Parts: sequence; structure tokens; C-alpha cells
Amino acid sequence: MGMPLELNTMIVTKQKEIKTETENVYELVKEGYRLYPIDIPIEVRTTKEGTPYAHARICKLTWEQEKTILTYELMDLLGVN
Amino acid sequence: MGMPLELNTMIVTKQKEIKTETENVYELVKEGYRLYPIDIPIEVRTTKEGTPYAHARICKLTWEQEKTILTYELMDLLGVN
Amino acid sequence: MGMPLELNTMIVTKQKEIKTETENVYELVKEGYRLYPIDIPIEVRTTKEGTPYAHARICKLTWEQEKTILTYELMDLLGVN
Amino acid sequence: MGMPLELNTMIVTKQKEIKTETENVYELVKEGYRLYPIDIPIEVRTTKEGTPYAHARICKLTWEQEKTILTYELMDLLGVN
Repeated sequence: MGMPLELNTMIVTKQKEIKTETENVYELVKEGYRLYPIDIPIEVRTTKEGTPYAHARICKLTWEQEKTILTYELMDLLGVN
Repeated sequence: MGMPLELNTMIVTKQKEIKTETENVYELVKEGYRLYPIDIPIEVRTTKEGTPYAHARICKLTWEQEKTILTYELMDLLGVN
Repeated sequence: MGMPLELNTMIVTKQKEIKTETENVYELVKEGYRLYPIDIPIEVRTTKEGTPYAHARICKLTWEQEKTILTYELMDLLGVN
Repeated sequence: MGMPLELNTMIVTKQKEIKTETENVYELVKEGYRLYPIDIPIEVRTTKEGTPYAHARICKLTWEQEKTILTYELMDLLGVN
């Protein structure tokens, strides 16, 4: 009677994010049920080991059929020189 | 940098659930971000202090704009004689 | 960068609970990191499929070395006739 | 029947951390029940708005009497020049 869950502190896109019609807003589907903080800034990375390239704010999180669907807005890009 | 959350172990409808087009499936909107176990049976009550009247399985949970939207399927009604 | 977690809504003892020196207070160690509601009444069962035999209130929860240690107080025994 | 919780993604010490007998290991007490990822690297800051000064790994988390007690190990100090 337990529900498996993963607590996440950053968004890792693996370049699977999809642009929405709203500027700077992306959708991303992750496997399994994952808990992310929403409405507060978190880091975005392309890979787990990579450098964060932006901060984002998740504005919607859905759990359904063993997937987590995130909608997030990019807030600021972290310059990489 | 914290996200307020409420951990819930049962569905309390306060008779605000809305029938969907699928038999036995209801939608319920709750204030704030709430964490419920999904895909496993949980109790349904009309009020917090009331007696459970059914078991249900939440099949979808969404967090958005400081609300939690649940879609759940009633599994068995608990006979009250 | 995720932390696996299990959301639990009841205590399943598998008869591994240990009596403490305080009356009605027990300690139980579970494998993995598990999230339980604390300070509110939850059901206690001997096995996952069994009938609840009591309500309890978890008063302390610790995560350490991939284990969850619960301290809970039995509140009322559910008569089984 | 809900348990209030705060999801945290970083440690904010407000300089209230206490050195333990083990090198680089600190204890910190926070108000309320807070969920932090444990066993994985997270940022440490002195204030919420401040710059992170280290990465740490929480190795123990306890909830009791409306407090959260963390034990964490500093992993690397982020040089500030």
C-alpha cells in the first residue's frame, strides 16, 4: 500500500522538452511519479551531470499513468562563457 | 525557497466532486498543493470527521495555480446499514 | 539527482515492532525512505492485506542509511469479534 | 486529516548549524516538518537570498514535535573570490 515516488530538485530535460505556444514555456514528460517543487525557481540542465543552463519555474505538474508531466517557464538563462 | 504542501491520506469531498462522463469517475478540486497517493486504494469521506463511504483510486493528480485537481474512480461503496 | 521515496498511508508492522519503555509506544524500522503522515491518526495492520487492528499516531520519523525509523503511539484498538 | 509539510531543495542555515564531533558534519534544527532530499548533493546557503557557499549531503533527517532535525556533511566549499 505504498506509492513509489522520486523527489527531484532540478529539471533534467534530456532535450525532450517541447515548446508550447506561450513564449518561454515548455512541456516535459518524465517516467514515473516525481515530486518537484512548483512555483519556485529551480535549475534546468540538459543532463544530470551537466551544468545548469537556466532557472525555471514549474507552473503545472500532473501525475497520470505512471508519468509526470511538467509545464515550466524559463526565467533566466545562465550565461556560459 | 520552500514549497508548502499538505500530505493527505484520504479524499474528503465536502460534496464538491463533479461527475465525469466515465462511469464512477469523479473530479475534485482542492485548495493548495496536496500530496495524495495515486493508483492505490484510499478512503473517501464527505467530511473529515465523517465515516468513509467508499474506497477510490486516484488516477490523475494535477497541481496548478495553488490548486490540486484530482480525478478518481470509486471502487467499492462501503455499505452503511 | 532524484531521491527514491515511498508514500505510505498506513503502518504495516509485519510484527517487527518493538515495545518502548513508554506505554503504548512502539518503534518500527522499515527498509528504504518512506513518507508517512505524522501527528495524525493512521491505521495499523499486521500485513498489507490484513484488517486494521488499531489507529496510531506517529510521533517521530527518522530517515537514515536507507531506512525509516518510526515511533508511534497506539491510540485505540479496533475490536475484532 | 492532512499533514502540513514544506518541500525544500536547499539547506538555509541562518548560521544556526552546530558542529558535531565528526569533521565536516553539522546538525541543524528547522521549524515545522520539512522534506529535503537526502543522500544526494544539495546547496547550502546562509540566507535564502544569499549565494550558495557549499554543497552538502544530508545523511539523517528526523521529524519530531513540529521540528525537522538535519545532519549533513559538507562536501565541497564553493570558492568565493
